[in-house]
Amino acid sequence: MAEHEYIIKRRVEFNETDMAGIVHYSNFFRYMEYAEHAFFRSLGRSIVNRELGVGWPRVHCTCDFKHPLMFEDEVEIHMLISAKTRKTMGYQFRFRRDGTEVARGNVTVVCVRRNEAGEMKSARIPEEIADLFEVAPADKLADNI
Amino acid sequence: MAEHEYIIKRRVEFNETDMAGIVHYSNFFRYMEYAEHAFFRSLGRSIVNRELGVGWPRVHCTCDFKHPLMFEDEVEIHMLISAKTRKTMGYQFRFRRDGTEVARGNVTVVCVRRNEAGEMKSARIPEEIADLFEVAPADKLADNI
Amino acid sequence: MAEHEYIIKRRVEFNETDMAGIVHYSNFFRYMEYAEHAFFRSLGRSIVNRELGVGWPRVHCTCDFKHPLMFEDEVEIHMLISAKTRKTMGYQFRFRRDGTEVARGNVTVVCVRRNEAGEMKSARIPEEIADLFEVAPADKLADNI
Amino acid sequence: MAEHEYIIKRRVEFNETDMAGIVHYSNFFRYMEYAEHAFFRSLGRSIVNRELGVGWPRVHCTCDFKHPLMFEDEVEIHMLISAKTRKTMGYQFRFRRDGTEVARGNVTVVCVRRNEAGEMKSARIPEEIADLFEVAPADKLADNI
Repeated sequence: MAEHEYIIKRRVEFNETDMAGIVHYSNFFRYMEYAEHAFFRSLGRSIVNRELGVGWPRVHCTCDFKHPLMFEDEVEIHMLISAKTRKTMGYQFRFRRDGTEVARGNVTVVCVRRNEAGEMKSARIPEEIADLFEVAPADKLADNI
Repeated sequence: MAEHEYIIKRRVEFNETDMAGIVHYSNFFRYMEYAEHAFFRSLGRSIVNRELGVGWPRVHCTCDFKHPLMFEDEVEIHMLISAKTRKTMGYQFRFRRDGTEVARGNVTVVCVRRNEAGEMKSARIPEEIADLFEVAPADKLADNI
Repeated sequence: MAEHEYIIKRRVEFNETDMAGIVHYSNFFRYMEYAEHAFFRSLGRSIVNRELGVGWPRVHCTCDFKHPLMFEDEVEIHMLISAKTRKTMGYQFRFRRDGTEVARGNVTVVCVRRNEAGEMKSARIPEEIADLFEVAPADKLADNI
Repeated sequence: MAEHEYIIKRRVEFNETDMAGIVHYSNFFRYMEYAEHAFFRSLGRSIVNRELGVGWPRVHCTCDFKHPLMFEDEVEIHMLISAKTRKTMGYQFRFRRDGTEVARGNVTVVCVRRNEAGEMKSARIPEEIADLFEVAPADKLADNI
């Protein structure tokens, strides 16, 4: 059974804030990975897998910030699979506090494998990973929630 | 004389790398701010200005990653003003190593001011700040370099 | 009833590692705060308390590293109150993975309050905070566990 | 000619501050590495050296904080070699702003090499590295400056 979404909760830490008193925007991209890696773990996998020999560099990302997050806020990070091709996956992330969306992000990752010359080259996603994920239904990915 | 671009150079630090051996993608958004804040300083200003009483939260950002950055790489961060409205500014950032573009990012910031209820509300950019910046020529902002 | 210890568990995140493949040493000091702030929360408090008007800058810290922490390791952070004076508190932190101590740290914090000139000055710990904590028994703080 | 000290200057970045408006204490340990790695570079070396096959994990560190650092402060980081053994080096770091010491830290690093079983084991510092450094004169390391 392929999965298309995963939710984690996380409390904002002091060192994630900046002198403006809010979470520094760069940290939202760390939060996105926390959800992605927990999603992999929930499926019995790790994003780091030396046997498979593949890596997952990020090639594109965006984030829209609607409300600031503060120290000790409990934030829900809702990850959805938004796209899946032979070599890439697209993720959507919705950040919510008390049910209100505070930010929304997108990340595209590409599967890479080291070639004989030692260079990382894009590669087909191994079947055993690809089979774990499916694109979320269109209505879940749509804007209006 | 309004300015539309600024360039800084920076060497990648060890703690900015991750176990994949490359700069963690979240750090590119920190590098973008390093260029923005240096741009302000180059004009005799600070992004933090308690007299003016305005702040500059980020409301939207993107980044495309073309090549990884490694420890001790010297990276050039080229910031261009890509948009300017009454209350917002748009920035474009090009990351280059040895003349090759390794990443390109965009950030939109909004000018905010605390209202009487203590809430941050979008506000007109103070003239003395707005006058420092102008949108870069279209050809400089175009994609093909 | 005053408390003298608290334990949290935390999984190592990808961005906390560096190119050596292990958690960057600076992050242990962030982990220490995660335990401290969770300890406060467990007592119905927050380390940030605008009503009381006090802050808790760190004035001294140490850490000894025995074994590296890796991505996705589950680490137990055991915080003990090691000292308590009118204006300061001392903490000891033991990091364990699978029951083995991997690092041990110490932090001294001082209670500060802003004076009329706006400067932060050391201040007596408010009673309602001081009463929450007591120094751990000597044998628990001793080296050989 | 062996060297015993090195100085870098660095401006505090926005993301290095926290909601207390000052540099988060964990970042001082990052600043220490910035000086160490620049010291290596100043001698034509890199702390990362795959030919030599050695690594430099930190085994002990301390820091005393005297005054906070703020956004855009220019801080001088003065690194001194405080100890040198067959397998370890000790560093002292003095942080100054406008000539005033704001913090002082110490780090002990150990030279390690991967053994045949793939484990990192402490190892003799390669001669070509050891020869670059000498312990600073006692008076320079003493407390009273």
